[in-house]
Amino acid sequence: MVRAVSAAEITAVVNVGDDVELHGLHISPDLDTITYTVSGSIDLERGWGLAGETWNAMGALARYPLARTWFNLGDRDLATHLYRTDRLRAGARLSSVSQEIADAWSLGLHLLPVTDDRLQTRVTVDGEGEIGFQEYFVQRQHSVPVTTVRFDGAEAARPAAGVLDAIRGARRVVIAPSNPLVSIDPVLAVPGVRAAVEARRADGVAVSPIIAGAALKGPADRLLRELGHEASVLGVARLYAPLVATLVIDEADRELAGAVADEGLRCVVAPTIMRGPDDAKALAEVVLA
Amino acid sequence: MVRAVSAAEITAVVNVGDDVELHGLHISPDLDTITYTVSGSIDLERGWGLAGETWNAMGALARYPLARTWFNLGDRDLATHLYRTDRLRAGARLSSVSQEIADAWSLGLHLLPVTDDRLQTRVTVDGEGEIGFQEYFVQRQHSVPVTTVRFDGAEAARPAAGVLDAIRGARRVVIAPSNPLVSIDPVLAVPGVRAAVEARRADGVAVSPIIAGAALKGPADRLLRELGHEASVLGVARLYAPLVATLVIDEADRELAGAVADEGLRCVVAPTIMRGPDDAKALAEVVLA
Repeated sequence: MVRAVSAAEITAVVNVGDDVELHGLHISPDLDTITYTVSGSIDLERGWGLAGETWNAMGALARYPLARTWFNLGDRDLATHLYRTDRLRAGARLSSVSQEIADAWSLGLHLLPVTDDRLQTRVTVDGEGEIGFQEYFVQRQHSVPVTTVRFDGAEAARPAAGVLDAIRGARRVVIAPSNPLVSIDPVLAVPGVRAAVEARRADGVAVSPIIAGAALKGPADRLLRELGHEASVLGVARLYAPLVATLVIDEADRELAGAVADEGLRCVVAPTIMRGPDDAKALAEVVLA
Repeated sequence: MVRAVSAAEITAVVNVGDDVELHGLHISPDLDTITYTVSGSIDLERGWGLAGETWNAMGALARYPLARTWFNLGDRDLATHLYRTDRLRAGARLSSVSQEIADAWSLGLHLLPVTDDRLQTRVTVDGEGEIGFQEYFVQRQHSVPVTTVRFDGAEAARPAAGVLDAIRGARRVVIAPSNPLVSIDPVLAVPGVRAAVEARRADGVAVSPIIAGAALKGPADRLLRELGHEASVLGVARLYAPLVATLVIDEADRELAGAVADEGLRCVVAPTIMRGPDDAKALAEVVLA
């Protein structure tokens, strides 16, 4: 997106339901993934964290028998969490700190957590009860069946300053090809956000995270099925029809374009697999057009 | 000391007034210095932290303009703080966590913070008012005049489980050649500890941290003068006379042995500069004898 339009025109409204407090540190994986990706610093192969990272702190942590080592934190990545935690404890809002971090990485865009308030995605796992999102996603490698997803604190959360204005004033409201149930839903769960997106439906575009019935990575397909949805562009279309007028689906799903249109969405067929910056730029241009 | 007697016979009762919370992490410099020293892992040249340490987290932290970077934290050292903080947040006592850390480093000795309660050394600095100990010691490199030292929280602090018993049951109560005013005093400031040490005065031995009027490192000499004491083995003798029957002074101060005795202490003259484990073992044997 930052290659298709000026970064200053972009506001990223980001999920914080994945945030986790570990070792006393406030960790915001989705915010940091955007920072590291847009700055070109992310480890592309791993898909998270910094390229050229070292792991000396985690290696040393393993010395302690009771240490929680299942959530990997690189040494340089740790600095981001140290900084965020220090600023939050000094009374700064998460949205302010996120922008400070974005600026320090020269992103040029507005980086906003959807809320400064506490909102935690929690999932009920067969036979275990309710656990935190990272316990599900990282510790259990999202390989356990989920029966419910809940956004703890959502009802009382308020949109961070700038979130609703960004949605109201945008030329396009874009829903990224992220997990509808655990990455997009917690954003929409903050009171006022879903209504703001719905009000911009005509200018709204979503990109399907499901291609040929499967997620490129992560458990989106599995979660859709487990929670009673269809793991296909049709399942995505049904979830997003109230929110956006247009759904972009991959060429692999071309034969479903008519069925998507039957759900009340304009369907655009385009290459949606982003193998690198050029693919991503081309997809952004489709979305913006 | 661990070379002179079996480690299992040793209980180290340690100052926590230097503890500092930074970036959300609970840092206990004195406890860690003992752990790293006894395990042979300390960086001997630097005098703190781990040998062969890397500094990638701190280097990355410097990217953030508002980051507090004056307190250096090595990557492997960070693991200790992450672990301690995580355990404290899970409800463990500092004394339990310190023993877990000591065990993980195979120290073999009992490592006890003097208290599990909050006790913070604070110093009043000329022209600045009261600041935290690490702000004085590290950030200002103890190069500013001090008018008062206060142990915030001391009155309400209770000795950690095992502290008083260790003092009562010890064959020897040893006061290490540490800073009397900011390292030993905060230990004694916990209600019950000074009285327990005084009750064992006959078996108590202190080693003077002042040699020929100067501290080997740190601001002990300067602080003694600034706070109205004599920066000499005599000043040390006057502070410790109620606590221990014997003061070990360095050979460089041999001519003051009589004056020390006049303060009511048995004076032992011995080499007290510990240039390595052999020197340290010899000094421990003097102290134990």
